[in-house]
Order: sequence, then structure tokens, then C-alpha cells
Amino acid sequence: MLPFALKTPEAHVPYARWHQLPLEAVRLTGGFWASRQDINRRVTLPHGYRMLEQTGTLDNFRVAAGLKQGSYRGKMVFLDSDVYKWLEAVAYELQANPDPALRQQADEVIELVAAAQQSDGYLNTYYQLVEPGARWSDLDFGHELYCAGHLFEAAAAYTRATGTTRLLEVATRFADLIDATFGPGKLQGTCGHPEIELALIKLYRVTGKRAYLDLAKYFIDQRGKGVMRGLGWLKAEYHQDRVPVREQTVVEGHAVRAMYLNTGVADLYLETGEAALRTALEHQWRDMTSGKVFLTGGLGSRYEGEAFGDPYELPADQCYCETCAAIGSVLWNWRMVLMTGEARFADLMERTLYNGVLSGIALAGDSFFYINPLLSRGGYARRPWYDVACCPPNLMRLFASLPQYFVSHDNHGLQVHLYGTGTVRLTLDSGQPVALSMQTDYPWTDTVALTIEESGPAPWQLKLRRPGWCQDASIAVNGQRIENPVIEAGYITLARAWQPGDVVTLHLPMEPVLVEAHPRVDAVRDSVAIQRGPVIYCVEAADHPGVNVLDLRLDIDAPLHAAWRDGALAERMMVIEAPGFAVNPDEWDGELYRRATRRDSLPLQPVPITAIPYFAWGNRGANAMRVWIPRVEAERG
Amino acid sequence: MLPFALKTPEAHVPYARWHQLPLEAVRLTGGFWASRQDINRRVTLPHGYRMLEQTGTLDNFRVAAGLKQGSYRGKMVFLDSDVYKWLEAVAYELQANPDPALRQQADEVIELVAAAQQSDGYLNTYYQLVEPGARWSDLDFGHELYCAGHLFEAAAAYTRATGTTRLLEVATRFADLIDATFGPGKLQGTCGHPEIELALIKLYRVTGKRAYLDLAKYFIDQRGKGVMRGLGWLKAEYHQDRVPVREQTVVEGHAVRAMYLNTGVADLYLETGEAALRTALEHQWRDMTSGKVFLTGGLGSRYEGEAFGDPYELPADQCYCETCAAIGSVLWNWRMVLMTGEARFADLMERTLYNGVLSGIALAGDSFFYINPLLSRGGYARRPWYDVACCPPNLMRLFASLPQYFVSHDNHGLQVHLYGTGTVRLTLDSGQPVALSMQTDYPWTDTVALTIEESGPAPWQLKLRRPGWCQDASIAVNGQRIENPVIEAGYITLARAWQPGDVVTLHLPMEPVLVEAHPRVDAVRDSVAIQRGPVIYCVEAADHPGVNVLDLRLDIDAPLHAAWRDGALAERMMVIEAPGFAVNPDEWDGELYRRATRRDSLPLQPVPITAIPYFAWGNRGANAMRVWIPRVEAERG
Repeated sequence: MLPFALKTPEAHVPYARWHQLPLEAVRLTGGFWASRQDINRRVTLPHGYRMLEQTGTLDNFRVAAGLKQGSYRGKMVFLDSDVYKWLEAVAYELQANPDPALRQQADEVIELVAAAQQSDGYLNTYYQLVEPGARWSDLDFGHELYCAGHLFEAAAAYTRATGTTRLLEVATRFADLIDATFGPGKLQGTCGHPEIELALIKLYRVTGKRAYLDLAKYFIDQRGKGVMRGLGWLKAEYHQDRVPVREQTVVEGHAVRAMYLNTGVADLYLETGEAALRTALEHQWRDMTSGKVFLTGGLGSRYEGEAFGDPYELPADQCYCETCAAIGSVLWNWRMVLMTGEARFADLMERTLYNGVLSGIALAGDSFFYINPLLSRGGYARRPWYDVACCPPNLMRLFASLPQYFVSHDNHGLQVHLYGTGTVRLTLDSGQPVALSMQTDYPWTDTVALTIEESGPAPWQLKLRRPGWCQDASIAVNGQRIENPVIEAGYITLARAWQPGDVVTLHLPMEPVLVEAHPRVDAVRDSVAIQRGPVIYCVEAADHPGVNVLDLRLDIDAPLHAAWRDGALAERMMVIEAPGFAVNPDEWDGELYRRATRRDSLPLQPVPITAIPYFAWGNRGANAMRVWIPRVEAERG
Repeated sequence: MLPFALKTPEAHVPYARWHQLPLEAVRLTGGFWASRQDINRRVTLPHGYRMLEQTGTLDNFRVAAGLKQGSYRGKMVFLDSDVYKWLEAVAYELQANPDPALRQQADEVIELVAAAQQSDGYLNTYYQLVEPGARWSDLDFGHELYCAGHLFEAAAAYTRATGTTRLLEVATRFADLIDATFGPGKLQGTCGHPEIELALIKLYRVTGKRAYLDLAKYFIDQRGKGVMRGLGWLKAEYHQDRVPVREQTVVEGHAVRAMYLNTGVADLYLETGEAALRTALEHQWRDMTSGKVFLTGGLGSRYEGEAFGDPYELPADQCYCETCAAIGSVLWNWRMVLMTGEARFADLMERTLYNGVLSGIALAGDSFFYINPLLSRGGYARRPWYDVACCPPNLMRLFASLPQYFVSHDNHGLQVHLYGTGTVRLTLDSGQPVALSMQTDYPWTDTVALTIEESGPAPWQLKLRRPGWCQDASIAVNGQRIENPVIEAGYITLARAWQPGDVVTLHLPMEPVLVEAHPRVDAVRDSVAIQRGPVIYCVEAADHPGVNVLDLRLDIDAPLHAAWRDGALAERMMVIEAPGFAVNPDEWDGELYRRATRRDSLPLQPVPITAIPYFAWGNRGANAMRVWIPRVEAERG
């Protein structure tokens, strides 16, 4: 029995400008992301369960519960979190598509989790099995609060999806123990890896219990004391512990930690309205987007500490771009959208989803990148699982919960942030029910049709994000083009009394273009990348037999041609064709360094270039790939 | 008492083409390297002693010996080796310049080391104090044999320098224990970090005890079983354990380990003449120099595992280029010179010494780089010491032993590999005494004068390396230019009956030039670097007020002017001046990425560029620096 009533979703977070819809309000019924969700459901979730079983991660709970003999398996202390993230993913899946078999599998896992919980509420199979006396003794690296956070997230999601509270009871017992353990006059400190902050706020939102919000704030306020041990050459910034969050003006250290912390800080702002939190987040966002984000939305320039680098330090080959960091960026940017109502945050969310997130998983759905480079010399391939397996179940929960990022609402109406084929159904604050359908082949084709399926008589506002990549969007209602539509912070805004059958047509011309990076981005100097709509392209060896993709060159005036390709990569997609060149290094003198010659001393051979979406690379075996292509200019053409 | 007679130096290693001279045969008496040796003697060695005391590294021996209460200090298991490397450096120093106070300090340290040795010969303060039951239990990461190797090297050097055998007795007792412990029918395995192989061969050479050579071979033969644990994303190649050494065709994994192992393998070849060893080393050298060595001679492209990268993966900013790896490359290349008589190995040794090694230490001699990047955005500075303090005492022993790399001999005569002001004195195999003096301001000026000070009547051969960077060397004897001198494998060869007073003048024109990298080196694409003689230059923020060095550009046709600069950097040196340009990123649209424009869309402002030797950077506070400068071509000038 819970000592509180369950609350409804994040519908009325006090300082949100826009509000998240309940997951079931939006359904993706076809097209790009529905297909991804389908693979997630059919392939990735069952694969994840098998891997959790095969690697012993589930057995750790059985052993901790006394249901099985054995010892802790796996090399890492934080493996419990993978089970929780899988449960969270299943919860979103069940909320959208009830499935008795999947539900039973998840319920069994929840029983295991419950059975492993200690009598005082503590739950962490590593510490229970390996270091039973050492609870809370290594906050910097022990990940106990991090794992607890993922338990809380899973519990909140599962409760909302199923109405059952078994996992929530486990979570709140542990949360209450943590609350009794940490805080002023109690044990001081916080987790080396942020996560519990945002998770406690989820727990607060589902239970209404204020203590969880206060505890989240306590953990956020503990940061920046510079007491954590760091890693390798990195000091306290690795753990996001260099300066207090309200004074943090740059993104630094471990990229996933930074994103999870900022997500939690954004949630705290959304609950409290404390201006200093928002200001710090705005500063960090500007720092990140002005010099620390890859073209794919990927984050983390260094292997060392999986960390952000200096401004403009954006290497193509040795970038880190952990899949989890890209996912963390989506989580943070989504809160920024809700906080501000500004399209720039949704733009980055979209860039990240289509590129830096999606590259993390094979098209087939059963192997994963942990690191997502923008240049590979070959030999790098996705794997079915990892010793540090944070990314695969993180992708599972993101894909299962994806519809919630498409549309939000406020008391004026609806805001559409992402485009796909599906339906939206909700009751506006005014009490009138509204239903829409969206029809599009986005991101491959450039038209989105929105049909009003249901609407009360009162006028309401429909906001459609005009993507930052699109210079010349146009919009029509019932076939009538709207000249000079109202655009507010990047959102085309249409307000009227909608009639069922009204059709809004958004046209987003997506000619392929070449993009370049700021001149201080030394790593991609004098290079260009191909972008079409939100999709970043790359050249892969598989499409360029007989040529090393490292030798390819592209004229910035080259015509780019978008063409369908079906089947070869197991999915239909648009590829980009262009006339390119290759330098022939055999004409080099055989040395690694030599006296400089003029640029045009190496002859260029014409080579047709075919670029595929970056997210689709690595699906034809390990082979070389590059996003940024060195350019030549017309005098060479 | 030693159970064997001490042997003379490496004078007659069986499979060496050329032989190393005893250290005292060559003295550097002035100029560039003598000044470096002087700072090593006056500043660096005393600083090292203070640091070993201050960090507790010496105390670890006192505690292990029962002379002091306490526990093991320091974060790493291999700290003993720093004491041994300091002792080795002192030994070379004492051999050249007897110094009673320094001798006494070293003798006291040796007594500490002896006192800490256990009764069966074992000696490792970490295992003795922290894991007393765990001897040899973690060969992959425990570094026990690595530390033993540095003890053996110190003992060999100290015995030769002083004729005393106290440290050699400690070393041989430990070596005998290791020999009794490891081998066929005994404990199997080898050390995760190579070092003991080369050290056992040094011990063999000083004692004549064949078992040490056999044991070195045993440890070399243990490699390549793929059983070691690896580190992070790196597997067994991290420990040089992927393939057997005779099948190793590429350099990979941890760069210092690769260099130390190859040094030991080269020594084994020099003793045994086993062709497969030499072939494997030749393959690896070609792999390294065709795509894995930085312009500075630095090695290691990745922080992850301090490791080599893929071919052509040579990032300027996130290169690793550990000082110890550069030193290891000098050690290995020196053996290749002795093995082959080919100048290409000495060329790389010289490149590495003047650049990638020398950057590791401040001009003042009391702070150090562990990592030596070719581009810094600022904020990176040398430190007085490190938790992992391998590099500082490695520099100390290299500088103290430097004269031995200048000249070698064989039964035809002498070979001069490096140029500096000094003297050479030895007895040729024929029995005739020979003495030479060298006079030069190399690497700043282009003339080396060698004067025969003493010579018997029989003709002998003088070989002088023609540096690979020099296209138009010329040579004169007693003012007579030699047209078309005999050049063998990069060595100008003069054979005659030399008379005292004969003067050989080598002229090595060293106009500053721009160099470029192979087109597959993506990181420095379309960039040039300035080189003059063996010295690589860089641009540093301190010389370019008001301009970000990341914005500098250089026309490949720009005139380069060499000029003396005295004092400002505490030493006289040649700087290079050139008319350059700066792009103004304020004219960029403020985004990190944008639609590509033509290259000439950003205006260039003329900016005078001053380049300083790379080794001298970072001596005016932490400031930005770059070696590779993006180029513009004449149409922009």
C-alpha cells in the first residue's frame, strides 16, 4: 500500500511554458520512426532481455535475493541500472501496446528486483554481493545513487503504464531510505554520476511526495565542492563537481554526466522557477552549441573521461560521441523546449535523434555503438552488447517513449516539434477534445500534412516548428498558402477555430546542401559535409570500391542529387550522389612528411560519390567511413 | 662478493655492425647539448631527488626496510622504478663528472634499496607493503618485473660508473630469484609492461652470466599469447601480447611498451643474430614511420591506452606523444643503428631528440610534460612532477647518457651520428689511439668542424651522418672540398691515414622550409609546418598578441627568415619569422556549422608570424600553440 495517491503525468509542471503530453496521447503509426519503434519492440527489447540473462545481470538479482547460488557477475558496479532501463523501456512499450507476454516477463523481473531488496529498503546487487559492508562508502565511483535513479525512473514509468505499484513500492522504500540517510545533519555528498536528481523529480511527480523534490534539490546543491576524485587527467569536472550548478557556465567533463545533471537541473527549475538554474543552463547550452557539439549532435570530444573537450575541439576520428550522451542531450533539450518554447532546442533534439542517437543502433536493431565517430578508418563495428551496457537499454527506452517528444500542449493549444506519421489525441485545458493526424514521409520527403480529426468550436493555436535547417518553409491551410505566417521563436503559429477535416500542409524544401564548420574547428578544416533535411550524410567504403574514402574530395560547387535506394541497407532511404574526386597517394613520394608542394601537385581523379545517411553506416560490415569530406574548389574541378 | 668477473662494456656485441663506445669516450663540452646536460646536472637531478623524497617514493623503501613507520605512499604500483631511473641517471653523471656529494647521496639511496630487499632476493615496496601475499599474482598490471628491470639497468650503470658492486649484488640476487621463479617448468608468463627484457641483457653484458640472456629470451618468447587483460577498449595489444614478437609486423597498443619491447628484441638480436627478430623489427619500423610517427618524433595517437592509432591517425591536439615513448624510440632506433649501419634510424633518433623528447622538459629543467601535443588551445602546462612520474627520471637518465649516442665504432673506424661540440677519445681495434674534437653551433648554425687531435699511422674510416633533412650537404678536408664523397647508407665515408691537425668541415645548409604531411593524415590536411635543420617549429600565443594562433594561416610561398633570439626564453635560439595571415572568425555568422561558402569568403588579415622551436614552447606560461599551420596559397596572398 502506498501512503499517497498516484498523481497524473507532468501535465502541469508549474514553471513549464509548454507541457508534456501523456505518452498515450501521441501514436506513431507509420513512416520512419514507427518503423524504428517496431524494430525496438520486435527485436531490440527481446534481444536486451536475452543479453541481461546471458551476461548474468539478472542473475545478480537472483543471487542477491537468495534464489540462486553464485557471485556477482560482470565487470562493472552499475549493471543493475541496465535492468531498470530495460523495465522502463518495457513500461513505455506496454503503455502504447499492451502485450500480455511482455507484461508477464516484466512482472517477473520486477518480482526479482523486489526479492533482492534488503529489509531496510537498500537495493544494489553489487554492494550487497561484493562489498556488503561498504554501502555509500564510495559515492564518487560506486554508482549506488545512479542505479537507484534508474530504478525510480522505471518505477514511475511502469506505474503509469500499468497502474500497478509493485515496483513503485520498491522504489519509494529505497528512496525513503536514501532520504533518511542523506541530507543536512545526515550523511553529506552526492553521486559521482548524476541521474538520481532527475529520477527523484519523476518520483515526486508520480507520488506527489515533496520530500523527493527536496532531496533532488539537496543532491543538486551538493555539487561543485570540488571534492570528487576525478579520473585520469580529469579532475572534479569529470564528476560535474568543479563548480556549483548555479555558477556552471560551460559544459565540461564526462558528457553523459553533464547531460543527466542538466536534465535534473532543468526539472528542478520547472518545479521551482529558480532563475539562477535557468540562467546557468542557458549559458551552458550556448557554450555547448557554439563549440562543443558535433554535426551529428554527438557530444564528447575525448576518450579520456568520455568528456567534452576545449571549444572547437571536435575531432572526427577520435571523438567519443557516446550514444548515451546524445540521448542525454535529447532529454535535456526537451526540458529546454518545455521551459522556453524556443525551437532552437527542438532543432538540436532533432539533429541529435536522426544522427548521433540513431547511429548507436544497427538497422536490424540487435547491435550497438557505444562510441559514434564521424570518421572510421575501418575495423570499427557495432557489438551485440558491452561490458558497460548503458547505451543499448537507453536506446530502448528512448525509442519506446519517443512519441512524447513530438507534441506538447499549453492552454492555447498544441505545439508540434517533430514530424512523423501518426495521431495526436487530447483534451485541451479548455475542456474541448482535439484529435489530429499527421501524414508524412519525413525525413525523406518534404511535405507534412496535418488533418484536424476532431475539434470543439473554440479557437485554438497550432504551432509547427520551422526546422532551423530549412530556409524556405511554407504553409497552407486547406490548400491556401499562408503568406508571411506568424513565427514565434521558430514556431509557425496558426490560431483559428478548427474544423474537422481542415488540412494544414507544411512544406519543408530539403535540397541536399554542403555544410562547413567554424574556421576554428581545426579537425574538419577545409572540409564539407552533406546534409539533407535533418539527416547528416557520410561516405562509406562499401559504396566506393577501389577507392579509400580517406582519399575522396568534393568540390563545393558539385551538384548533389538525392535518390531513393531500396533494400541494399535493409530499409528504403535517400542517398546523395555527387561527382567527386580522389587523390592518388601513390603519387606521393612514399614518405610520411616531405617538403611542402602546391596544393594542386597531386592530381585528382574523378570518382562518383554516393553518400548514405550517417545513421545507416556500419551496416555492411566494418568499413571505412567519413562525414567530413575535404574540399576542392572550382579551379581543381 | 659476486660469483663472476665484471665484464667490459657493450664493445663487442656479436651481431652489432657498429659498437657502442663506453660513455666516457665521448664528452660534450659546449653548445646545445652540453648546456642541456649542465641543467640536468645542476637542476634536474637535485629536483628529482627532492621530488622522490617529497612524494614518499624513497620513504617506501625506508618503510619496507623497517627503518621507518608508515604505509606505502603514492597512487601507483610502479613507483620504485623512479628511484632506480634516478640512480641510473646519477651513475651516468658520476661516470662523466665525479662528484663526491652526489656519489654519497646515491650510495645512501642504494643502501636503502639494499635494506628493503627481502631475504630471498625479492624487492618491490608496493607488493611488500600493500599486498605481501600477492607476489607475481598480477603480471598484467603489477609491474614487478618492470620495476626489477629498472633496478637492473641502474645496477649495470652504477657498477660501470663507480666500480662498486653493492647495487649489482642487490640486482643479481633479485634476478636470480626471478630466474628461479619463471621459466619452463616453473611459473609461466611475463610482465604487462616490457622493460625487463632489455634490462636482463644489460645485466648479462655486465656480468657475463648467460642465464640472464636466456631469461630475457624466455620473457620475449612469452609474448603474443593473447592472454593479458588489456585496458578499456584495447585488448591484448595494449600489453604487446596480441601476436608473438617474431610475427609482429605493426606497432600497436601502448607506445612506451612497444618501444621498450622492441629495444629488448633488438638487443636479443644483437646477441643471437636470429634473423626473424630483425625482420619483425624492420617491418614494425616501416609501419611506424609510414603512418604512426608525429613530425616531432612523438609516438602514441590516443589517450586511450596511451597507444598507437591506425595508420595516418596523427591528431595534433589529442595526440599522446608521451615523453617516455619518444625516449623509448631513441633507445630502439639506437639499437637499429648499431644493427644496420643505416642513417635512417639515426635520422629518426635526431628528430625525436630535438623535438619530441626535448619538449618534455622546461628550459629551466624543473618541470615536465608527460603528454606532448602538437596543438594546444591553452591551459596546458608542464608540472614539477606526476603521480605517474616515469617521464622526469627517464629524461634525466637520457640526458646524462647522451654522449653515447653521438659516436660509435667498428674495426674500420668511427661513425658520427649526432653533431655537437665535444671530444671523442678511444683506442681502435687495431690498437691505435684516436682522438677527435668537434666544434659546432648545431642545430643553430650549419657547419661542423672535426679536428683530428691524435691518430696512429694506419688509415681508418671516418663516417659522418648526412641528415635526412639535408638535401645538399658538402664536406671538405683541410679546406679542400670533396666532390661526390662516398655515401654509404646515409653516411659520408672518408678513409685515410689521418694526421693530427686534420680538419674535416661538414656543411649542412639549413634554410627554414615548410613541410607537409601525407594526404591521408587527415588531422593536418592542408597545413604546413616549419622546419629548420632537425628542429621543428611552432607558433605560440606569447609571440602573437591580439591574435588567436588557431586563426593563423601561412602562404606556402611565404619567405621564411631565421633570426637569433636571445634571452627572452632563457636561452639563445633561432626563431623563424614569416609574413602570415589571420582569419577573423568574427566575420563568421556565429554558428558552429553553416552552409558551405567558398574558401575565400573569409577575409585574411596580414599578421607577422614568429615561430619558435617546438621544444621551447610552454616556457612563458600556459598558452596556445600549434605546429601545423593551415595554409593559403598564392591566390590569397
